[in-house]
Amino acid sequence: VSRPRTAAVICAGTELTEGIIQDTHVRFLSSELTAMGFTVVRGVQVPDNRGLFSEELARAVKDARVVVISGGLGPTSDDLTREIVAEAAGVPLEFHDEAWAAIKERFRGRSLPESNRKQAMAPRGFPLLANPNGTAPGFYGMVESALVVALPGPPSELRPLWTSRAAALLAERFDAPGAADVLWGTSLMVPESALEEALRDTGVEGVTWGTRVDEDRISFSLRGGDEERRARAFKDLTRHLGPVRIRAGDRKPAELLTQALRGAGVTLVTAESCTGGLLGKWMTDLPGSTAVYWGGIVAYSNEAKIRLLGVDARILEAAGAVSEQAVLAMAVGALDRSGAGLAVAVSGIAGPDGGTAEKPVGTVWAASARQGDARAVKFSFAGSRDLVRRRSAVASMLLAEAFLGGKGFLDTFANW
Amino acid sequence: VSRPRTAAVICAGTELTEGIIQDTHVRFLSSELTAMGFTVVRGVQVPDNRGLFSEELARAVKDARVVVISGGLGPTSDDLTREIVAEAAGVPLEFHDEAWAAIKERFRGRSLPESNRKQAMAPRGFPLLANPNGTAPGFYGMVESALVVALPGPPSELRPLWTSRAAALLAERFDAPGAADVLWGTSLMVPESALEEALRDTGVEGVTWGTRVDEDRISFSLRGGDEERRARAFKDLTRHLGPVRIRAGDRKPAELLTQALRGAGVTLVTAESCTGGLLGKWMTDLPGSTAVYWGGIVAYSNEAKIRLLGVDARILEAAGAVSEQAVLAMAVGALDRSGAGLAVAVSGIAGPDGGTAEKPVGTVWAASARQGDARAVKFSFAGSRDLVRRRSAVASMLLAEAFLGGKGFLDTFANW
Repeated sequence: VSRPRTAAVICAGTELTEGIIQDTHVRFLSSELTAMGFTVVRGVQVPDNRGLFSEELARAVKDARVVVISGGLGPTSDDLTREIVAEAAGVPLEFHDEAWAAIKERFRGRSLPESNRKQAMAPRGFPLLANPNGTAPGFYGMVESALVVALPGPPSELRPLWTSRAAALLAERFDAPGAADVLWGTSLMVPESALEEALRDTGVEGVTWGTRVDEDRISFSLRGGDEERRARAFKDLTRHLGPVRIRAGDRKPAELLTQALRGAGVTLVTAESCTGGLLGKWMTDLPGSTAVYWGGIVAYSNEAKIRLLGVDARILEAAGAVSEQAVLAMAVGALDRSGAGLAVAVSGIAGPDGGTAEKPVGTVWAASARQGDARAVKFSFAGSRDLVRRRSAVASMLLAEAFLGGKGFLDTFANW
Repeated sequence: VSRPRTAAVICAGTELTEGIIQDTHVRFLSSELTAMGFTVVRGVQVPDNRGLFSEELARAVKDARVVVISGGLGPTSDDLTREIVAEAAGVPLEFHDEAWAAIKERFRGRSLPESNRKQAMAPRGFPLLANPNGTAPGFYGMVESALVVALPGPPSELRPLWTSRAAALLAERFDAPGAADVLWGTSLMVPESALEEALRDTGVEGVTWGTRVDEDRISFSLRGGDEERRARAFKDLTRHLGPVRIRAGDRKPAELLTQALRGAGVTLVTAESCTGGLLGKWMTDLPGSTAVYWGGIVAYSNEAKIRLLGVDARILEAAGAVSEQAVLAMAVGALDRSGAGLAVAVSGIAGPDGGTAEKPVGTVWAASARQGDARAVKFSFAGSRDLVRRRSAVASMLLAEAFLGGKGFLDTFANW
């Protein structure tokens, strides 16, 4: 049974179901439709096969109020979208003189294969969507109770046509809202399952949530209810997990640290062992990072810690490279040898080898230092080498941010 | 009506139908299944919704003999794959002690959320597919007349599990060609469209190909024909694009450089400006990198280039930080200040700002140095900040590898 503001996306092309090309339309169109308040019930890649494609369309017009089809508008016999939509709508195909003129115009007098005439056809009663970037126009119209919008397959044709024509059409017909009814937040250093538990516990009537896992954070959205209720759910979650790990908006850890650095008017130097350059990479992912990121040292070997950071060899011998003393010496050394106002250092055992009973894989020390002050914190992370490294980078960025803000960060970080 | 060797792919996740993340599994699995002789009848992205997901599975087991499901195996209530497959098969869920032990082992004694117990469950009678790269095992079994294979959603977990277990399972059950009938290669620094053109041009009868795009390379597979024909196609491709850009096997650039460093018995120091730590990160992604990676300097600001690498301030003033002189000074400075036998340096304009008429965005200099010898090469890269940075890292790794091998690398790199 079709609900209001439901949508389905069908991408036609055997090259998609043979894995020859990567579909990107489902993501693009789903993101656009979701922002307009539609629930996308499915995205499908279907081969250029009459039976499979017809069946897919028949199902989509039952399940959704809007069906967007991409592809299948070329001039060859494989291109079935026109015929299949016309058949589903129970109307014949109709030739459009002005579309044919536009196609001939694109060929600028060169001889035009007869098969291209097909591209000037559309189901009767379906207005065309003129395509300034290719030969095939799109079209739209009703099939049963669904609005079907057919767009050309090449991304360079589909995206402009969607933006300039199709999106406006849908907004008008469905009185669609914008992205205003969603509250976005970010969760840092919280395992997915623990975040979900916390989200479930913070139940506010009418507010639902979704999560998005990235390499450096989990973003979450609170939807439904009204603005006040979404704000209440967010506040509950913050009380539950703490203001260091729950942030307003969709924010990368590097953005949060950059903001703190800008606020304090200082630049950052990084001293990385186990993360091997990841801290620097994340800082410089952001355009304009020159203003806040001074540079760094990847002190991967012990010799690098000694020669590039001035860490005392006796510390490394006595306490080891993964120790409070070593990571503090790394932070202080980086601060002294740079022109930066804040240093962050991280040293840990990322695995899969190198762990001991005393210092198992996942043991990580991070430190932050500024003139006359330095603090170190120990973490125990689970997971693969990749995960331990990413968690180490996030943790040390948050530590640097907290240190800069003068917060009682040791309490905050104690139970991670 | 199900035909032999028909397959369907279902990707579960609301993040897919909200356009938050890009699905890549349909392409990967379709390519693999097509190469094994399966006809993929559809690929679907379906939200974490019980009704929609169940309906999708019911339809897939009617239309295809093999149904591959990705995702929905996490610990949260959104993760529905286990329940939905069990229900479709008409069996209850069963708890697997050995899977639970493996999950606990991954958490290394830390407290484990109760919700993770769910990940040790599978439909009764469905053998598990142990997942060495994550907590959630996959599983497989019959639903009506279809073999259903459920795999974890993260690509870093799905792909190895597919390759090591699921593909072999299908090859055996359907008498399909296995992994032995595939020749894998890697293409570096070649745009996807140029690689496809080259692959098309190197047509050897009966040999088909597929590609897989990663952040640091494009892997490609040659399938069909016989061993001799696949080798011939590979040789043609190498002749066309050159032996630096086409490599045997699926190899990361960091692996190739690591191999060259091991062979020469030297360690590497990196001096990075525009890549900001990415070179170091890629080197240390590989376990055991301590043996070949000494460490590095992220000389992002000019002051860092001067203070940490000893670059003469007059060079930066006269020629700029993105110049042959600067990048050579960076490489030589890193070599001198480290205990490493080989240095690689990279400095460029990654954008989006900072370009000039003379040095547009995408202008990148890379250099490599060892005792008594240094060479620099200029590149002009197209694309986003992220793409320019990744291309810079790959190019400088290949330069270091070629420099170490004593190849006439300037000729090789001249027309990139």
